[in-house]
Amino acid sequence: MIMHAVTFTFRPDTTPEQVRALAKELGTLPSLIPALRSYHFGADLRLRDGNADFAVVAVLADEEGVRAYLDHPEHVRVVETRVKPIVATRSAVQMAIAD
Amino acid sequence: MIMHAVTFTFRPDTTPEQVRALAKELGTLPSLIPALRSYHFGADLRLRDGNADFAVVAVLADEEGVRAYLDHPEHVRVVETRVKPIVATRSAVQMAIAD
Repeated sequence: MIMHAVTFTFRPDTTPEQVRALAKELGTLPSLIPALRSYHFGADLRLRDGNADFAVVAVLADEEGVRAYLDHPEHVRVVETRVKPIVATRSAVQMAIAD
Repeated sequence: MIMHAVTFTFRPDTTPEQVRALAKELGTLPSLIPALRSYHFGADLRLRDGNADFAVVAVLADEEGVRAYLDHPEHVRVVETRVKPIVATRSAVQMAIAD
């Protein structure tokens, strides 16, 4: 399987409402994108200094699953309308994990 | 529970041997750190442009578990000897996830 992990930092003017709207729409994706084997996302808990602001961790079966998720029209829509307006930096990795 | 997700970029002179040594030592941590409920790590598969180079995703029970992992002497040793010599940037998030 493949684990897709992304961390984001937000622009300084990002509002809690924008983050809530992002989380709400991300929460709809597992029911819309069958390729998602598991899906976790959320704001940083502020336990450590220097952290980023938000993360998404998805598990997909294979490379085709990664494409099915990342390129899904509803995922692309959430990225364009809820992520891009507030994100300063993004750091993503797809890594192989044991089945 | 808390999911701890970190992405790293490596310095340009990082060798495959250094990455293998890092992965080998990370692989010993679950047996040494009982707080780790699950532990995944690995190099980016190069499926997408602009990705980071390596990620670690750990699940801990709670904030105490996060500390038990991050501050564990063996984890600290691996960070000091295997991570810091090769890492250019690090982006971490701890987020709440459903039990």
